[in-house]
This record gives sequence, C-alpha cells and structure tokens, in this order.
Amino acid sequence: MKRYFIEISYNGTDYYGWQRQPRQHSVQEEIENALSKLHSNKEIPIVGCGRTDTGVHAKQYFLHVDLENVGDTKHLIFKLNRMLPDSIVIHGIKEVSFDDHARFGAKQRTYRYFIHLKKDAFINEMSWYFPQEPDFGKMNEAAQHFLGKQDFTSLSKLHTDVKTNICTVTKAEWVKHDDDRWYFEIAADRFLRNMVRATVGTLLDVGLDKIQPDDIKKILEAKDRGEASTSVPAHGLFLWKIIY
Amino acid sequence: MKRYFIEISYNGTDYYGWQRQPRQHSVQEEIENALSKLHSNKEIPIVGCGRTDTGVHAKQYFLHVDLENVGDTKHLIFKLNRMLPDSIVIHGIKEVSFDDHARFGAKQRTYRYFIHLKKDAFINEMSWYFPQEPDFGKMNEAAQHFLGKQDFTSLSKLHTDVKTNICTVTKAEWVKHDDDRWYFEIAADRFLRNMVRATVGTLLDVGLDKIQPDDIKKILEAKDRGEASTSVPAHGLFLWKIIY
Repeated sequence: MKRYFIEISYNGTDYYGWQRQPRQHSVQEEIENALSKLHSNKEIPIVGCGRTDTGVHAKQYFLHVDLENVGDTKHLIFKLNRMLPDSIVIHGIKEVSFDDHARFGAKQRTYRYFIHLKKDAFINEMSWYFPQEPDFGKMNEAAQHFLGKQDFTSLSKLHTDVKTNICTVTKAEWVKHDDDRWYFEIAADRFLRNMVRATVGTLLDVGLDKIQPDDIKKILEAKDRGEASTSVPAHGLFLWKIIY
Repeated sequence: MKRYFIEISYNGTDYYGWQRQPRQHSVQEEIENALSKLHSNKEIPIVGCGRTDTGVHAKQYFLHVDLENVGDTKHLIFKLNRMLPDSIVIHGIKEVSFDDHARFGAKQRTYRYFIHLKKDAFINEMSWYFPQEPDFGKMNEAAQHFLGKQDFTSLSKLHTDVKTNICTVTKAEWVKHDDDRWYFEIAADRFLRNMVRATVGTLLDVGLDKIQPDDIKKILEAKDRGEASTSVPAHGLFLWKIIY
C-alpha cells in the first residue's frame, strides 16, 4: 500500500457538503464511489482536509487515500476526471508518506467569501448579492480585531466534539475583486463550524454602521454566538487554499 | 402611452428560453409578470429582440414595451430588479419612438459560444467542456467561409414560418479567452434557429480534422442540414450584443 494526496476542486452547489452521509449527495461519496469502481468495487475510504457545509465550494482541497501502487498518476487523474461529474475536478495525485494526513497535517487554511454589489445574472452560484454598498474601510479596520490567537466561540455554531474554540487567525482582509465585486479573505490554523460565514455577517454589519469596529473585541470576549451577527449564505464561500 | 426599450441580461439555465409558452418557465413570462404587478395586474405584453432556446444565455438583450409614462426610469429599474429573480437583470430603460421595434429594428446580432478544454468545476453553466484540443487555426480558416450573404439552410433547424434562409454574416472568429478557454464570435443581420450551435459543431469537427476547411463551401451549397455536424449544447451560448 501507498498513501496518496489528491488535490481537487469542487462546486458545492449540488452537494450536501464534503462529508459522506446517509441519503444525501456528498463530494466524498462521489470520489469514494469512483475510486471503488476502479478497484473491483472494494470500499476505498478517503480522508478530506476538512468538512465544508452544504453549498460551500472548494477552489483547493486535499484528501488522502491508501491504495495499491497506482502506477501512472496522470492516467488515474484522467480516468477519475472522466468518471466524476463536471462539478468535481481532480488536479493532481502525489505519493506521500504514511505520516502525512490530509486533515491533521494542514497547517493553514484560507477561505474567501465573495459578494457582489450590483445585480449580476451570471455569478449567483458563487457570490452573494449584497445590494447596499458597505464601508469597506471600516470593515477592514474591524477585521484586524480577528487577528491573532483568540477564542472564536462567539462566531461558531456550538460543536460538542470540539475541545477548544481557540483559533490563530493570520489574515483577515476585504479585497476589491473588480468594480462591483469584493471578497473577504481569512487564513487560520483551524476554523470552527460556521466561523467564516458568521465573521462575514458581522463585518458587513460594521460596514452598514450597525456595529462599530471596536465592538468586535467585546463580541469575541463575550464567547456567546448571540453577540455576533447572522451568518451569510453558503454559496459565496470558497475554501481557497491549504498549506501543509 | 410611451414606448420604452429595456436592456437586460439573463442566465438561461433555469428557463425554457426567452419566449412565453404554456406550462414552461420563460424569461418573457417573468418580466411580463413583474410589469403586470406594477400596473394593477393589467396584462403588459413585451416584445423581445429574438428568441433564445432553452438554456441559452443573454449578456445583452433588448425588449420593448408600451406603458403610461413611467416617470423616473431609475426607480423602475430598481423595482423591477428587486422583483425579478437573480438570473434576470434590468440594466436600463430608455424612451424611444413608436417606430422603434426591439425585434425588427435590430440591425446586427452577435453571439458568443464558450468552450473550455480543461475540466473546471466552476464554469459549467456557461461554457461547454470540450476535452480534446482542436486546431483553432484551421477552425478560423474554415470560419471565413461563413462570411458574407449566404443561404444557411444547412446550419439550421427547418422552420416553416421563415421565408428565407439567407443571412449576412459579418464576423466569424475563434478568440482565445484565457489559457484553457476559447469562444467563437459570430455577428450577422439575422440568425436561423439553431444556426450558431450547428456552426460551432461543424467548426469543431474541422478542428478535429474530420472536415477540411474548404468543405464548408460544399456544406453551405448543399442546403441540407444533414451535411453539417451535430449542434453543440445550449449552455455555452450567449446572445452577446445587439446593434440597432
């Protein structure tokens, strides 16, 4: 057996997220089924670098899988891409050591959340239409308060199986994409469930002057999800980059 | 009453084309219903610049409508955009004279057909995945044979209500969009049903060396749809620009 890292991207529109679950269509299920077909229908479990919620996309995503020597990886990439739907793309397959783990080995994850301020017929699957122009200067001032090692309980759905809500955020910034499109980029060692979407919702409220930039400190200190704003919808969110 | 031209764009993915028809969801129906709601539920018929098939998009599209003075057009644009789904966008409303006609007044229409050569999870609604690299040089050589005033019977679904199949094509060219994406742009005074998709399918067969560039002349002369290649799918096609 050998361990392989597989780099993929996917459009989350048609999936109930990454993780396999009964009676729901998931990205993990599609890839496991394809691998299984190539291996005499043997079950081939894969381990992803993280969960993504229903409708969230991944520009870059890594999974690992243990397989007999696959031979020419280019050939396997070609076969998998032909078997998988258009919404899932295999970009690369690389042999790694058995110490490497797609989830636990990830040192930094980056997410981007896209919004567009002007109605656009063609990007709605992958950007959230936000018709009021918020104050991006204030939002970036507020975003600085998320940097560093902090408790993100106020920006997360409670999760009983998580021992700590401490995350170290190394980037949090709104970037102008083009005339009417912006994205929020956030990088951290780990993310809690719903954290990016709650953070974006809170920053947009800063941009609309409902919250002041300095209020972010109090929101974080409260360790209470009720203090932050409503989460923004899933379809604007991309898992963008993973560093091992 | 006054006549107004309304400029819109739409994502055709969810529609059975532009034209209103019983028991099917159309762009025309959406806009007529929105206008009707704004006018005490009176029926407000609109006239589009042309039909588009199921799944075809329009980057630019014009329609005309006769209404009582609408007052501030900006306000009407705002209201319509709020009522219409994300997939239909109103860009402008302009008063014209009663001689102006969205369909009969159009002097030139331009279409673009997008293909991508490398699997991509994020553009499948609006580009056709064509995994073999065709010879774009040969395709552009062949495309020149479509220029000028010619009979396009060989590249059209037969249409009993059309008196002539003569079209004057002023542009027909493959353009590189980025590394793995190309589009075919074709401009003409009029288009027959299915004409762009049959033309693209035929040119791609040239690119794969199944047809030679000079064969296009014979295909056109045959005036027989059976001589040209299969049509490409609707979702890569955009009505791109209309000139009055």
